[in-house]
Amino acid sequence: MKVGFCTMNYAAKPLDEVVRIAAEAGYEAVEIPAFLDNGQVDLEELLAGGAKGVKELVEGHGLSISAISNHADTMAILGGGADVAHIAPGTPDEQHEWAANRLVMTAQLANALEVPVVISFTGIGSMSHMNVFPYPNGWAEEEENFVERFMPILDRFQEYGVKLAIEGHPNNIIYDTHTARRAVELTGGHPCFGVNFDPANLLYTGISVEAFIDEMQGRIFAVHAKDCQILQHNMPRGGYWMFQGDWGNYQRSFRFRIPGWGSIDWKSVISELYLTGYDGVFSYEHEDVTMSADDGVEKTIAFLKPLMIKKPFEARTDKLFTK
Amino acid sequence: MKVGFCTMNYAAKPLDEVVRIAAEAGYEAVEIPAFLDNGQVDLEELLAGGAKGVKELVEGHGLSISAISNHADTMAILGGGADVAHIAPGTPDEQHEWAANRLVMTAQLANALEVPVVISFTGIGSMSHMNVFPYPNGWAEEEENFVERFMPILDRFQEYGVKLAIEGHPNNIIYDTHTARRAVELTGGHPCFGVNFDPANLLYTGISVEAFIDEMQGRIFAVHAKDCQILQHNMPRGGYWMFQGDWGNYQRSFRFRIPGWGSIDWKSVISELYLTGYDGVFSYEHEDVTMSADDGVEKTIAFLKPLMIKKPFEARTDKLFTK
Amino acid sequence: MKVGFCTMNYAAKPLDEVVRIAAEAGYEAVEIPAFLDNGQVDLEELLAGGAKGVKELVEGHGLSISAISNHADTMAILGGGADVAHIAPGTPDEQHEWAANRLVMTAQLANALEVPVVISFTGIGSMSHMNVFPYPNGWAEEEENFVERFMPILDRFQEYGVKLAIEGHPNNIIYDTHTARRAVELTGGHPCFGVNFDPANLLYTGISVEAFIDEMQGRIFAVHAKDCQILQHNMPRGGYWMFQGDWGNYQRSFRFRIPGWGSIDWKSVISELYLTGYDGVFSYEHEDVTMSADDGVEKTIAFLKPLMIKKPFEARTDKLFTK
Amino acid sequence: MKVGFCTMNYAAKPLDEVVRIAAEAGYEAVEIPAFLDNGQVDLEELLAGGAKGVKELVEGHGLSISAISNHADTMAILGGGADVAHIAPGTPDEQHEWAANRLVMTAQLANALEVPVVISFTGIGSMSHMNVFPYPNGWAEEEENFVERFMPILDRFQEYGVKLAIEGHPNNIIYDTHTARRAVELTGGHPCFGVNFDPANLLYTGISVEAFIDEMQGRIFAVHAKDCQILQHNMPRGGYWMFQGDWGNYQRSFRFRIPGWGSIDWKSVISELYLTGYDGVFSYEHEDVTMSADDGVEKTIAFLKPLMIKKPFEARTDKLFTK
Amino acid sequence: MKVGFCTMNYAAKPLDEVVRIAAEAGYEAVEIPAFLDNGQVDLEELLAGGAKGVKELVEGHGLSISAISNHADTMAILGGGADVAHIAPGTPDEQHEWAANRLVMTAQLANALEVPVVISFTGIGSMSHMNVFPYPNGWAEEEENFVERFMPILDRFQEYGVKLAIEGHPNNIIYDTHTARRAVELTGGHPCFGVNFDPANLLYTGISVEAFIDEMQGRIFAVHAKDCQILQHNMPRGGYWMFQGDWGNYQRSFRFRIPGWGSIDWKSVISELYLTGYDGVFSYEHEDVTMSADDGVEKTIAFLKPLMIKKPFEARTDKLFTK
Amino acid sequence: MKVGFCTMNYAAKPLDEVVRIAAEAGYEAVEIPAFLDNGQVDLEELLAGGAKGVKELVEGHGLSISAISNHADTMAILGGGADVAHIAPGTPDEQHEWAANRLVMTAQLANALEVPVVISFTGIGSMSHMNVFPYPNGWAEEEENFVERFMPILDRFQEYGVKLAIEGHPNNIIYDTHTARRAVELTGGHPCFGVNFDPANLLYTGISVEAFIDEMQGRIFAVHAKDCQILQHNMPRGGYWMFQGDWGNYQRSFRFRIPGWGSIDWKSVISELYLTGYDGVFSYEHEDVTMSADDGVEKTIAFLKPLMIKKPFEARTDKLFTK
Repeated sequence: MKVGFCTMNYAAKPLDEVVRIAAEAGYEAVEIPAFLDNGQVDLEELLAGGAKGVKELVEGHGLSISAISNHADTMAILGGGADVAHIAPGTPDEQHEWAANRLVMTAQLANALEVPVVISFTGIGSMSHMNVFPYPNGWAEEEENFVERFMPILDRFQEYGVKLAIEGHPNNIIYDTHTARRAVELTGGHPCFGVNFDPANLLYTGISVEAFIDEMQGRIFAVHAKDCQILQHNMPRGGYWMFQGDWGNYQRSFRFRIPGWGSIDWKSVISELYLTGYDGVFSYEHEDVTMSADDGVEKTIAFLKPLMIKKPFEARTDKLFTK
Repeated sequence: MKVGFCTMNYAAKPLDEVVRIAAEAGYEAVEIPAFLDNGQVDLEELLAGGAKGVKELVEGHGLSISAISNHADTMAILGGGADVAHIAPGTPDEQHEWAANRLVMTAQLANALEVPVVISFTGIGSMSHMNVFPYPNGWAEEEENFVERFMPILDRFQEYGVKLAIEGHPNNIIYDTHTARRAVELTGGHPCFGVNFDPANLLYTGISVEAFIDEMQGRIFAVHAKDCQILQHNMPRGGYWMFQGDWGNYQRSFRFRIPGWGSIDWKSVISELYLTGYDGVFSYEHEDVTMSADDGVEKTIAFLKPLMIKKPFEARTDKLFTK
Repeated sequence: MKVGFCTMNYAAKPLDEVVRIAAEAGYEAVEIPAFLDNGQVDLEELLAGGAKGVKELVEGHGLSISAISNHADTMAILGGGADVAHIAPGTPDEQHEWAANRLVMTAQLANALEVPVVISFTGIGSMSHMNVFPYPNGWAEEEENFVERFMPILDRFQEYGVKLAIEGHPNNIIYDTHTARRAVELTGGHPCFGVNFDPANLLYTGISVEAFIDEMQGRIFAVHAKDCQILQHNMPRGGYWMFQGDWGNYQRSFRFRIPGWGSIDWKSVISELYLTGYDGVFSYEHEDVTMSADDGVEKTIAFLKPLMIKKPFEARTDKLFTK
Repeated sequence: MKVGFCTMNYAAKPLDEVVRIAAEAGYEAVEIPAFLDNGQVDLEELLAGGAKGVKELVEGHGLSISAISNHADTMAILGGGADVAHIAPGTPDEQHEWAANRLVMTAQLANALEVPVVISFTGIGSMSHMNVFPYPNGWAEEEENFVERFMPILDRFQEYGVKLAIEGHPNNIIYDTHTARRAVELTGGHPCFGVNFDPANLLYTGISVEAFIDEMQGRIFAVHAKDCQILQHNMPRGGYWMFQGDWGNYQRSFRFRIPGWGSIDWKSVISELYLTGYDGVFSYEHEDVTMSADDGVEKTIAFLKPLMIKKPFEARTDKLFTK
Repeated sequence: MKVGFCTMNYAAKPLDEVVRIAAEAGYEAVEIPAFLDNGQVDLEELLAGGAKGVKELVEGHGLSISAISNHADTMAILGGGADVAHIAPGTPDEQHEWAANRLVMTAQLANALEVPVVISFTGIGSMSHMNVFPYPNGWAEEEENFVERFMPILDRFQEYGVKLAIEGHPNNIIYDTHTARRAVELTGGHPCFGVNFDPANLLYTGISVEAFIDEMQGRIFAVHAKDCQILQHNMPRGGYWMFQGDWGNYQRSFRFRIPGWGSIDWKSVISELYLTGYDGVFSYEHEDVTMSADDGVEKTIAFLKPLMIKKPFEARTDKLFTK
Repeated sequence: MKVGFCTMNYAAKPLDEVVRIAAEAGYEAVEIPAFLDNGQVDLEELLAGGAKGVKELVEGHGLSISAISNHADTMAILGGGADVAHIAPGTPDEQHEWAANRLVMTAQLANALEVPVVISFTGIGSMSHMNVFPYPNGWAEEEENFVERFMPILDRFQEYGVKLAIEGHPNNIIYDTHTARRAVELTGGHPCFGVNFDPANLLYTGISVEAFIDEMQGRIFAVHAKDCQILQHNMPRGGYWMFQGDWGNYQRSFRFRIPGWGSIDWKSVISELYLTGYDGVFSYEHEDVTMSADDGVEKTIAFLKPLMIKKPFEARTDKLFTK
């Protein structure tokens, strides 16, 4: 297990500076972005020849690239219209096609960089469909769109030898354990299909993230080290659904936090992941409105590094233990 | 306080039969529907002259009409497009206009029937906007639409001397305490604007319904007697957000229930309402997938009737009590 | 077990009317007041000869007198000065003496009426002494006063063959389980000393009322059927200590309630009492700010009567049960 | 759904008197015992010709026999030696054989009486085997014994057209959800194998009885209406494992109770059972140390009868409901 | 944010030694006492000329003085009589005057030392007044005294340019969130009036300290780093009110603790404070009966230092974040 | 307080290597095994003369021996037959005698090594006896055996000047607080009889380990630093009783863990122990199926060392503190 670093934590800094910061702080891997205009990685440029340089830059600091993530572009694969107009151009159909293509290109880059995993969202037509009222077939149609648009993408991933790790989140086809399992089922258990386990995105639905890990074992291809603080004293008024509005509002019932400062039990999560087969990177993502990224960089590595498990239990063989 | 009855509990039976059932079971008021093709009440027909007959029918059984509700048509006021195509005809603009008109007509009928309150939904453009990602201005635009479309409606209500009680629910502009207070604020505290307090629609967001009552005191114009069961053993996988799919699925993390069979503390709710000024009807609505409406009719009145509070505390004046 | 009635529930009505109301509603016993100017029972008058009439009045309605209570006068036994000036006249010493005498007179009346139990408070010098800061010896001095003033009273009770049941409450020497046990210890286990178990007065300290029952078994001489509602949504701001101010304020973190409408588990309390040897009266006291005494009279008897336990377990003797 | 009555609630009374008591109190079915020397039903005598008389006796009071239970004899099927010497005679092998034979005879009686279900325990070699230390193969051997001894019994049940409902309980092969599912698996899903759901026997293991119902749906052949009170104030010292010693000890951390007086949520349990397909009898069993069987008979029927669900949800077909 | 040190943690050591200990252990500020006979700081002497020396002493170790605290003398401002006779001399009126004068002198010293904040208690006439019974006007009179005595003090503070931070605590006019807000209101929002947030003094009332922070934002002038352990296993008997008696009694339901060893969630508290505008010192106060001050000094700095937040969130500007 | 090390954590390594590992990692004491064939310590050999060498080996690394433990052999003192056939030879009586002798020899070794405490189990005839059904006298017989077999052992311990610390665990006579207190009572408060407090073995019974400490104060002779994780998401199906089967099964409702990775509050436990008089060693035992012993060795010392309390509270003497 290793602690990694999302380079978008410093979206305003160039990639090489961020890699250096991560390396100096003790992180062992980076997750780099591929969405359009991210300011650090230019997908088209790299596919046209610059990939090798990025690999060398990262490895030059003694780090590896754990995953390439494309959170923005991919919102238009199932999403469309005005809500993603600032992300993808054209009519809804053109938006879907453009976004799907960007995701495939991201896989192509992963292949070029020998990175095993691409992280993405799916977007959604409308989160209204989560509810059967007023439109009872809404969610079924979202699922149909998901299959139709993602199955070809997954086949392309297979060609490139790259895995697709969908990140669960509201405004996506996966947002709890049921939807995560359903998505695997809808792909027919496609070998390239799995999830990026970001516990902070799941906790405010009220689920048990440990149960999520158990149910999705073998399909967890990446992990985000991000926390989520449930603010009990604000719950009576905002509950688990308080979303609209400013992330920094002190009346919100939850906030994204750096690992160890929220309501997730990291020792439990780390143990459950390791026991069920995950031995990869925990990629630290900073969305904590209460403190600077500089604070987060320092506090996160200090918190997580000592928790990384190195080896599995070497079963004892004496009389007190039999299996 | 009185226990009332939503006649749509028996959507397949004619109005007169349902009123008779309610009266015989001991209910003291009815809430009748006004949405198109509800099978019991034809809004246009009544406005054209049949209103008096309905009033006599109800009063003939010793009951009163507590409210007229229009849950279906009104989903198209803010909602639009395919999701409400089976509800409202035409382009989105035509849908909004048609729906707004239906709500005003409902107020007109309330005036004709001397019914003080109309209950409605608002619909929503897309529930996706609850979340600031991907479209940060989404909810603000929903709020703008709300103001633009509802202020004229409220003025018409004022003309008719009728109050509008919005029912909080997903896929609507009100779904928790913050959004309910915000809606009042957006209308500038319009005297005709308030809510139909349906605790079952709020509980699965994780809020305290008692806090909702406190915050909305003076703006609660109607109450639905409907319960919501949070299924703790299903929470680890579905959480508070499990919506898509069959209401009768045993794996759901909540179900609508008849009063007293769910997770709402009715004695607490009734006390809080009474203490903060509500002395009206609790209108029983049946959406309980575990039992028949017949079961519900019998069990609900037996449960709720003894809980109705009749008079406020007549402060004691002896030495032990000084206010 | 029987359900009884505190006649002070209708402080403004004369005793005979209240006894009639209680009897007609199905209550089986009454608790009558003895404090000065209570408006129903004149202690001095009765001691001068009217006792027999009161006994006949109550028994004429088929009821018995379960206890005589003196809540007001007795606050001056340990209390004194301005805080009890409206209760007891004179200097602090005169106040203590007057109040102690009133309590002894109450026992005398109990003897005359053949009532086995007198209920009282103790008062307190200052509740500030509960805390060791700023005055470390404060509580020890309160305990000294308690012993000095109550031991002679208890000996008088013994002469009259009457038991003294102190009601735990803030501003008294008993307010939780530790102080209740300590009080028994301080009296040297005096046979006439015990408590009136009023669970509502204890619950907002956060203790387990079941544990109180277990610890005080054999010393519970009377029980008040009064409930206490802990308002979870108000706890974040007022906690367990919110006292000052209006009982009817909706922001309070607790309220006194009629039995069954608060946070006490009555089936559990009744079972624990019965199992540990209490087989007496549950005397209903109305201090519920959310509803009228008329509401309470009707709802309480309907709630409590079916819960009274009639006989202990007649141990089974078949093979499935041994012991 | 019906409320039934275990005639062993009055082990000291003859069967006809108990059936009369049950009928007069409003119960609609009885569960009768078959274990040796139960004092009400003589298994050998009935098989020799008296069965018809019992059936007529019960039906003569307008009741039916919901199940025949054999709790005592069957403890020796897996159990053996001194612990069951008062139950079954001979060597361990003779004990097992005798007990297995008694269970088959019970099925034979059920067939004769046209009773669809027989309830039994299984016993256990030693509950020590629940734990892998000191003997790691202990539980596996218990499971082997279970298969070896119960498969022939189940085949005999199939011949008689009777179902076997094992009651989960400590000192048995089934005591939680995992062991219940495992037992079904071990029988290869034998069509006659299922459980008698007695929630009180399960709750003190800390499981969710609702989850048990979900997992065992289709295999619940009978239900006991018995409650279990978890005493939170005693938990810190005795926990979920406090077993040894007197059931009436007030320091125990749980007690068996009559329905509605314990920690089971009966509305939830009844709903879950009905939704997943159980529409049978709730057989009231009295093991409540805090009150008499007379108390229980009266309180149980008053509590449970109004909760019986009569018909499933007749799905609404109007615009507000689409499945 | 900085971790500071109350020099009274070593009441028996001279100031210079304590400052040295604090500095060597890594603390960055000190809070020094001003009450009579504290053994470290002689208020009158310093006002007569020694102030500069203290400032130099502290700064000589690289520390600053975060606040001057006067916990003892100030108990007599509202308190009086025997309870504070060891603190303030004379009649109650003389006691009040003496104490008020001492507080003003403390402000004068703060001015001389360029320390921005003075911490004090208020005392109380009698904590009995928290409860409306027996004396309904008790609390109102306490509030009147508070206004009458503190408004002149606050004006003097304003002259000196110093802020007054009242510490909430039993036996004071502020003990929960409601009373804290009320106190601000009573001063008319005086610019010099605020609180010293000592979460340990608040937690055992059952409130949410995070809600306290939210409600008091802008009025928190100082913070005590002191924890409070709620002992759940002792709660059933002592509840939230167990005060009288020895702090070291193992049966108490709470104890004061060093930060991180109690029931306060420090990451949550620190985040809430920072988000709502507090960027000052956390002054460690040792009242932990389970360990020595030496233990506390070492464990507290190790625990708190890494939790100090250095800079606010520098909002990201990429496509994934919009505000 | 010191952090110690159970050398059986590396059962496959020789004693000297393990002592070196422990010393290098920062542990300050070791607990060594004495059961037959443990691979590290040969009881008979040492009694025959090698004891001194072991003492020198340990002390040569700067460590001490905190206790000698004999967990395996001692299971046959009360246990017998097939379940302990791999532990002790012969008939049940021979097994008991052999095991008792082994425990006495362990005390003899402790005496030789100047080690104050021996840790052991007791075993049990059958855990079935925990339950009164089917055999009501089962537990009483286990207690009789305990007294008969352990009293002579305790007298031998007294001769050797060694204390016996029984470790609570299922399949033993002590498994919760009630049984621990009962065991002390059964020995008549024998001065050599006490417990090895292993909180992990107690927590999954649902008790409060803090209450256990309070009740057993003065009788806690040793402590195991082992944690136990209660897996809430698995509780609905397996509860507190899930034992049979593989420790590494992800569906179990609890797992043994290294300190700090489970559900025990170590700061609370350490404080409670210290406050009630325990100032000894916390002996780290590795049974954590989620990680290697190497992981555990490193993580445990890092977690526990900073929590050791060094000195008791030196009561403050200033005006703010009086006792």
